[in-house]
Order: sequence, then structure tokens, then C-alpha cells
Amino acid sequence: MTTPLNIGIAGLGTVGAGVVRLLNDNAALVTRRAGRVIRVVAVSARDRTRDRGIDLAGADWVDAPEQLAHHTGVDVVVELIGGAEGPAKALAAASIAAKRPFITANKAMLAAHGMALARAAEAASVPLKYEAAVAGGLPVIKGLREGAAANRITQISGILNGTCNYILSTMEATGREFADVLAEAQHLGYAEADPSFDIDGIDAAHKLSILACLAFGTRIDCAAVSTNGIRAVDACDIAQANALGFCIRLIGQAAYDAGGLYQAVRPMLVPLDHPLAHVKGAINAVTVDADPVGQLQFEGPGAGAGPTASAVVADLIDLARGSNGAPFGMPVAALEAAAPADPGARIARSYVRFAVEDKPGVLAEITAAMRDCAVSIETLIQRGEAPGGGVLVVMTTHEGPEGAVARALAQLGQSSALTSPPLVLPILG
Amino acid sequence: MTTPLNIGIAGLGTVGAGVVRLLNDNAALVTRRAGRVIRVVAVSARDRTRDRGIDLAGADWVDAPEQLAHHTGVDVVVELIGGAEGPAKALAAASIAAKRPFITANKAMLAAHGMALARAAEAASVPLKYEAAVAGGLPVIKGLREGAAANRITQISGILNGTCNYILSTMEATGREFADVLAEAQHLGYAEADPSFDIDGIDAAHKLSILACLAFGTRIDCAAVSTNGIRAVDACDIAQANALGFCIRLIGQAAYDAGGLYQAVRPMLVPLDHPLAHVKGAINAVTVDADPVGQLQFEGPGAGAGPTASAVVADLIDLARGSNGAPFGMPVAALEAAAPADPGARIARSYVRFAVEDKPGVLAEITAAMRDCAVSIETLIQRGEAPGGGVLVVMTTHEGPEGAVARALAQLGQSSALTSPPLVLPILG
Repeated sequence: MTTPLNIGIAGLGTVGAGVVRLLNDNAALVTRRAGRVIRVVAVSARDRTRDRGIDLAGADWVDAPEQLAHHTGVDVVVELIGGAEGPAKALAAASIAAKRPFITANKAMLAAHGMALARAAEAASVPLKYEAAVAGGLPVIKGLREGAAANRITQISGILNGTCNYILSTMEATGREFADVLAEAQHLGYAEADPSFDIDGIDAAHKLSILACLAFGTRIDCAAVSTNGIRAVDACDIAQANALGFCIRLIGQAAYDAGGLYQAVRPMLVPLDHPLAHVKGAINAVTVDADPVGQLQFEGPGAGAGPTASAVVADLIDLARGSNGAPFGMPVAALEAAAPADPGARIARSYVRFAVEDKPGVLAEITAAMRDCAVSIETLIQRGEAPGGGVLVVMTTHEGPEGAVARALAQLGQSSALTSPPLVLPILG
Repeated sequence: MTTPLNIGIAGLGTVGAGVVRLLNDNAALVTRRAGRVIRVVAVSARDRTRDRGIDLAGADWVDAPEQLAHHTGVDVVVELIGGAEGPAKALAAASIAAKRPFITANKAMLAAHGMALARAAEAASVPLKYEAAVAGGLPVIKGLREGAAANRITQISGILNGTCNYILSTMEATGREFADVLAEAQHLGYAEADPSFDIDGIDAAHKLSILACLAFGTRIDCAAVSTNGIRAVDACDIAQANALGFCIRLIGQAAYDAGGLYQAVRPMLVPLDHPLAHVKGAINAVTVDADPVGQLQFEGPGAGAGPTASAVVADLIDLARGSNGAPFGMPVAALEAAAPADPGARIARSYVRFAVEDKPGVLAEITAAMRDCAVSIETLIQRGEAPGGGVLVVMTTHEGPEGAVARALAQLGQSSALTSPPLVLPILG
């Protein structure tokens, strides 16, 4: 048995406490697998007095997280504070500068500063690891960076936000409306008081931009992720989708080809026989289309103390075993600076929901606009009441450029027949 | 760029040719990810003249596979010959003795000799890697050894044989009988002329014993895997299971607790809402129950040239990146020698199919035997015709020790009312 691996943890919220608990509960097992004892020797958190139900005897408390980068006896710094800037970023920079391996669960920081941090880590020959940053417990960072490393990856599609998936699958199971299910999710602690980060797709966009970098060997470009959340999805959309053989999920999708790097987060219709369709509740899943392996899927709990701690400690065990590859699978200099693809050129089938006046000629107006923009209609169903009043018209299109549908809707935008703006949801192919 | 990684490949069948093709087709990508060129410098195969559709210019041919262990310029030996003994085993031993990293897709050899090979590799500080040995393209070896390393794994359940899954899911989709679908699978090349290795569960048992070692930190004990194949599954079983809300899959399952190491391969009823239920065709999938992460699932193509080559080359890239952990996640000396669990003590619900004489009192006889052995019946359905004649009686039990069902059937074994031996399929919990 070699010397222990001594860690300093910044942040003792749900995840930080979960890491301490895991290292304690599975101590013997982790030691066998890591080949050495992994122990917490220093911590930093705002409140020293709070009872977190964990044993921190023997760990030094430091006032500022950044001190962990220099605290005597710390071999590895684990950052679980969160936030793209501020103390998390300062701690990352200080740890790398001090040549201390740095482990983080901070997707926002990696999405914003991942390239700069990786460049610094490379220059200093310091490991930078972040399995917990994407999809919590499922080892999809490792799966892409190492498991699928031999493949030309053509597309990744993932359910990357457990809160959205919980809301959408609960709406599906109960027929209830978004606002109602969101309120319940907040009450149960599945959604934040300010839910925007989750339900507007921002969290999923951070994760997607990291996965795209690993999958395609391109630089992280989170600003280029076209991001739409789930606020506009109505109970009627879920019912109509179900009747057509689909469910609705918030999907992060990225693809890379001659047309550039495509990255989008948005609610999509998922065919019921697609492997992502059975992913319910707060589960995350990532589907990888790759050559020559075919299609891989990784699935598991994407958030919470236990799953996230599982990923953080997996990184620690990797470190203890001596694994130290480039954070993003290759040196930052080897990553390509990909131009964003034109999202309008993306080929897909689409679902469009209209709310229209109950008067003659409305369908003629809609179908004329589609014809003018060369959108081929597959089904057109007029039934029931639309959210907010009016008649519900639901359309699905044949495959075509998404921009054509957008142009048709822009043309219809002037129409007095529409009682509210249409909702477009592309169909996962 | 550092020096190339030079490999020698033994065996140029489907998988060997697939590896050469992958290294050629994805050469630039593999070089970027590995940080160095990976090139084939020597090969050994029975027939030098066969057209395999691959470019072997620049590679030396050696007569005996074992020569690759000593051939000048070979850095890594890749064994794709197969078979637990003979040339594959000799090559493994020779490569390790010559301190050449050894990569293999050979589950039969690892199931039989994995511990001895790992011990030798450790002693010589030589990497031994085998991602392709279990479930082809899906990176489940890495997922268990590294991704889930922080967890106490309580159970693994997997669809580990694509041939069986193809046959069972085709029987399900078409209502056809086993023999008929097997013959078609053989005709299409999905099943071997001698299909025993696949359909009797032997291949899945090899894989399961390797996964169990990684999951539980126990020594590989393939001889202790209770192994039953799918020959006895009849079209009527699939129809009855479907009516009850299940499908039938060949499941490899292992668990480890105070009662010992449980390892079994057998057809089971899988609830239609279980993540393994939607796995169809030649796809493999492994579900891991672990604390604290919860349940993880890995899914993807389990066999074939592309998927298997993907796993072999992932191992090569890992090697090129300098990763070199213990083959089974910890030194062989640290693996526990687990006693096999008593399979009769396993708690499960069961499905039992009887073929009985059409005469009064038969159900009373069956239910009396169950009562005598303390088996609690959940449903009992008498309908239709049994395979081979007689009336079909289908029963499901409440949870209880599997041994109790076996005892009840042993008691019924003397009965003249049974026209053929009953079939017991446990229900995946």
C-alpha cells in the first residue's frame, strides 16, 4: 500500500457532503480499488456549524476555497462550489498553478472556461478531471473520451437535465399542465425556486457543449448552442405527440460535418421505439452514433448527492491509479475551432402546433404557406381546443430543412387566423 | 508527436480484419486521440492469400502467432484468434513473458485463465486489456472497472449474447418457434452452424464471470456460473409472458452478499417497463445496481467486426495514452475468493409452464405440491394447448426462495398428470 491520496474539498452542499459520505461508507472498497487510502484532509464551506450528517474529524477547515490550492498536505483539490466565475474559477486557476490535480463537477465553469483551464492544466502537466460535470452518475465523459475513442462520432443525443425530464414525463403520465407540475417539482425539491437554469435549457446546453468537444474533437463553444427550454410545451402537445407515436423530451443534440458544428437543446418528439423514449423521471441518458461501433447508449441518475459523488470519486480513483490523459481527449491545440452549422439547414421532420380561429379557410392558409416554402406535410389533424383558446391544429412534416418550416411560419405570422404563435418541435430521427 | 505504437495482430478473421480496417479508415482521428500513430507492423493468420479487403502492405507476416511476442518492432500484441487454450493462450503467456502489452477479445480464455494471466501481467508490469471480450462495442469493462469504481455494486444483469437476443426477440415479434428462428439465424450468419456455444448460454457465462470479477472484486469463477440456454423456451412461453406483461430474454445475472457469489445465465421474464425489456435484436446491454450511484445501464452492439474493433482500438488508445491499471481493477491478490451462493436460496418470483393431461384434479395436484413446499401462487392460468400436446397451465409465484419451486416440481415429477417436464423461468426483479 502506497501513501494516502489526500484531498481538499471546496463546497459542502449536497454533493460535497455526498463525496465525504461515500468516501466514508465505501472506504474499504475505495481503498482496494484505488490501491491507496483516499482521505479528506481539508475542507472549505461557508458555514462551519451546520450539521451535514458527515464526519469531518481530522479535516482542516480553511476560510477561503482558494487556500486549498496551497494548504499543506493536500494532494488533490475537489471543487464543488459551482458557478462559472468567482471562487470556483479562482480555485481552479490556483490549483493548476500550484500543480495540484483538480477535480470539478462544475459544468457552467467548464462550458465557459474549459479550454483555458485545460490549456493551463496541460502546460503545468496537472490532471483536470470532471466526470461529475455531465450527467452526474453515468460515466459518459469516460465513455466518450476513452470508450468510444476509436470512432468517428457523427451525432450525440441526450437527455441531460433531470428536472426537465421529470416534468415532461410527469406531464405525460398524468396529463397535467407544465405550470402545475413545475410547482410540484419545486415543492418536492426536484426544481429550484428560480427554475430558469434547468427549464430554459441552459444547464443542458452547458453539458452538451462539453460532450460535443469530447465527441468531435472540437473546441467547447457553448455560446453557439441553440437553446430552447420546455416552458412552451403544453399538455395538448404531449397528448397529440403520444397519439402520433411519440413522447416529448428535452434533447441536447450535436453533430459535426462539413457544414459545421451543430449544437441544439430543445424539446423534441421522440419516437416511442427510440432508446431515449423509455427514459423517465430524473434519469439522464446519452445516445452516441459512431462509426464503426454503431449506436451506444449510457443511462443512469444524472444528479443528486449519491450519483454525483460516484462520479467525483471515480475521478479520484482514476487519479490514484495514475491515469492522466488530456482533459478533453487530446491537447487543446489539437481541438478544431469549428464554425457553427446553420441550424436552418438541419434536416428533420417537424411537429407544428397551431391555435387558430374557428373559421373557413384557415387550413388552406396554413397549407399554402407550407407549399410556398416547400414544406411537405405528412399529417394534418384538426381537433380539440388549443391552449389559450381557438381550435387546435397539429401538423407533422416530411423530412426537410428546418429553415423551410421557420420561413412558412414567418409567412403565416401576419395571419389573423392564428390566435397564438405556433410551436415547432422537431422529431428525433 | 511521439514515436508510433507498433502492433502485431494474431488472427485476421472478421474481428482482426475489422481492427485493420478501423485503424486505416479512422487513422487521422485515432492518431489525434492516441497522441501517436498506431500502426500494424506484423500479422499472423492461417491463410496469407485470402482477400480480406484490407491493406496489409508494410506488415510482416509471421507463421506462428507466438512469434509476435518476439518479433522485432512489435510494441503491443493483439490476440484475436479465440479459444481458451492452444495458440491464443500460448501467445498471451509469451507476450507477457516478453513484457509486451497484450490486448485480447478472448472471453473464453479470460474466463478460464484470466486470473493466472493477470497475475503474470502484474508480476511483469505488463498491461493486459480486454474491453472487446465482453459485450463487444459497449465499454462496460471500463464502465465497471473505472466508471463505477466508487460504488458498492450489488447486482449486475445483462443481455450478453446477441444471438440469443436476436432469436428471442424475433420469436416475440413473429410468434415463430425456436427451431425455425434458429435455422433462419444460421442461414443469415447470426448463428453458428454449431450454435451450442451461444444458445446454451456458455458464451454469456464466460462474459458474466468476467463482469462479476470487476463488479464485486471477486476472483473469476466461471465454473460456478449456473448456466441454462434458450432451447426450452417455446413460442407459447413468449406469448404467455407477453400477456402477463413480460418479455423473455437470456439474462446473465450476478450478485454478491454474505450468502456468497451468485452467478447465473438463464432465460428470464423481464417486466416490459424494465430497461432491459426494450433491448432487441443483436444488441447487448448491462444494468448495474450500485450504491450510491443507483442504476446504470450500458447498451450497444455486442458483436461484429465494427463494434469489436472499436473496443480493441479503444484499448490501444488507452495504452498509447499511458493508462495502465490492474487488469481487473485491483491486484489479483486483493480479489476475494468468493464461495458460490446457494442458487436455491435466491429470492425471486417465478413463471412455471406445465403441460398436463386434460382430466379433473390436475390443478389440485399442482397447487397441493406448491402448498407443501410453501410456494405462494400469484396467478394460475389454464388455457390453450401445450407444446408437445396436453393442456397448457401457466403459473406465476409470489417472491420466495427458488429452491422451494424446485422442490415442488420435484414432488410433482412422479405425477402421471404431467405430459412433459415443466419449464421454470424466474422473473427479473
